[in-house]
Amino acid sequence: MSTVLSVTLDDVRAAAKRLSGVAYRTPVLTSRTLDEHVGAQVFVKCENFQRIGAFKFRGAYNAIAHLDPDDLRHGVIAFSSGNHAQAVALAARMLGTRALIVMPADTPPMKLAATQGYGARIVTFDRYTENRFEITAALAAEHHLTVIPPYDHPDVIAGAGTTGLELLEETSDLDALLVPLGGGGQLAGCATVMRAVSPRTLIIGVESQDGDKNGQSLRAGEPVRIAVPRTIADGVTGEVTGELTFPIIQRLVDEVTVASDTEIVRAMSFLFDRMKLVVEPSGALAVAALLAGRVRLPGKRVGVMISGGNVGADRFCELLTGPLGQAA
Amino acid sequence: MSTVLSVTLDDVRAAAKRLSGVAYRTPVLTSRTLDEHVGAQVFVKCENFQRIGAFKFRGAYNAIAHLDPDDLRHGVIAFSSGNHAQAVALAARMLGTRALIVMPADTPPMKLAATQGYGARIVTFDRYTENRFEITAALAAEHHLTVIPPYDHPDVIAGAGTTGLELLEETSDLDALLVPLGGGGQLAGCATVMRAVSPRTLIIGVESQDGDKNGQSLRAGEPVRIAVPRTIADGVTGEVTGELTFPIIQRLVDEVTVASDTEIVRAMSFLFDRMKLVVEPSGALAVAALLAGRVRLPGKRVGVMISGGNVGADRFCELLTGPLGQAA
Repeated sequence: MSTVLSVTLDDVRAAAKRLSGVAYRTPVLTSRTLDEHVGAQVFVKCENFQRIGAFKFRGAYNAIAHLDPDDLRHGVIAFSSGNHAQAVALAARMLGTRALIVMPADTPPMKLAATQGYGARIVTFDRYTENRFEITAALAAEHHLTVIPPYDHPDVIAGAGTTGLELLEETSDLDALLVPLGGGGQLAGCATVMRAVSPRTLIIGVESQDGDKNGQSLRAGEPVRIAVPRTIADGVTGEVTGELTFPIIQRLVDEVTVASDTEIVRAMSFLFDRMKLVVEPSGALAVAALLAGRVRLPGKRVGVMISGGNVGADRFCELLTGPLGQAA
Repeated sequence: MSTVLSVTLDDVRAAAKRLSGVAYRTPVLTSRTLDEHVGAQVFVKCENFQRIGAFKFRGAYNAIAHLDPDDLRHGVIAFSSGNHAQAVALAARMLGTRALIVMPADTPPMKLAATQGYGARIVTFDRYTENRFEITAALAAEHHLTVIPPYDHPDVIAGAGTTGLELLEETSDLDALLVPLGGGGQLAGCATVMRAVSPRTLIIGVESQDGDKNGQSLRAGEPVRIAVPRTIADGVTGEVTGELTFPIIQRLVDEVTVASDTEIVRAMSFLFDRMKLVVEPSGALAVAALLAGRVRLPGKRVGVMISGGNVGADRFCELLTGPLGQAA
């Protein structure tokens, strides 16, 4: 029995149309050194150069642009302390509406400032005594705001999938595609594209070894809740996989593997030294798995997503010169 | 009285043809944050993503590809401990010939290894007791090798100029172009292109404040030898401007300005945090001058060259967390 999945290739194509001239068409880079290290021909799609520094802009913009005029006028709300917060803030501003972002009170001031810099209003809460879902829902109801979820929404998944569409346009005939995996928005979107356009391409998700909720859920055959992951990959610290993304991953993705924090730091260092790229820990997951030999694709044409680059120079240097960097 | 310059637009076009499909066509990136900081519309040409991590590959390849078959067969020689060494090594290998690179004995082992990694043979010398020019000339004569200079050669200048050609193709109608300046190969090549294709574009070279040989020479009306520059910009530590590049700069360039080491580190940090780019100190000169307000171009369309990205993560972190980083 097959369930109907929530996103189709047509949805991704519609998202690509909405994002045309709005999102950056990020470059696809290659590196002889990377190819030699992994024994394959690798094409790196650089969403660290996307607006707000991560692919998240695509989904947020697509979802907000798709609202009906009345909802758009009232504005949007999101819960996030990371890339999704900035994505919703910027997309709302570009679409002429207001954004309210709910953030933990202990969010680093730099991240608060960055989100405010895109014109959003911030509401903070105490994450030890208050419930983020209740706060977000109450504010949404009170102010007639539409909630823009970070991944569990068809338009967000479709927007994220445009990264796969663009990569395919520039590098037809991929044998495999590796995508960083947390909530699963980008992986689900890319898998939707690949299965429809390039069915023979192997699709592999890479999640944090210390937060392998998707792998555990796939093995269990149903969503599994894990303990809050302790990982440097701060973009993928959720405890559950998505309600919409998980069935897509279950049905369309060939393999889900992991990368450890040490492997992530090694990949960040490699990407800096050899490819001159600044990549945040979560954004380096797929490259990390490839460099660590967790996925072996000798002689193949391999697409790899870098999902974001939002790591400050201070934090980058701390990671590289700290114990993980020494081990790497 | 006008002297005939050594490079023409046709030379740059011929170089572009030789480099087509060989050099990477590096991306031109934009950043809302950068635009807001400098009050202009900025287009950043990213030669840090070029083969060997710097624009130097273009000139070296163009010069070697232009040799007559007999000279090509015998091989090439270069003196360099930096990007030019790797550029000549890789270009020679790609063109099926051998390269001999003369390097100071105290060159960091990593740089020796990188150059050897591209298949070159290395000859080291003691820079306190031996003369690099004599050694290079003697080896060239003994082994029938052609010397490939780092900038003072028409084919090297023409190759470097292709960066300007590509930038113009993607961003017509530039009001100004800023180029990092050491020996002057890239500036001379880009000025040749701009004067011919976009005569109204203001052309500005940016050199290290602590090694301003070009500015001093321009003011003196003739080449001036300066003391060995003490600067973190290790790509531009020569003591004299070029014999071929200086007349081109003198005739075609509108302005030469400087950036300090502190301004360079600030630019490297900005490029990392805001644009996810790894840029070496010399490569950040033009961005540094723009961010520091040394050049003001309010409301203008400004092209900026990033000439290279060869700075290791260790050195990067040392610079950013050291006294210069604190001051920045």
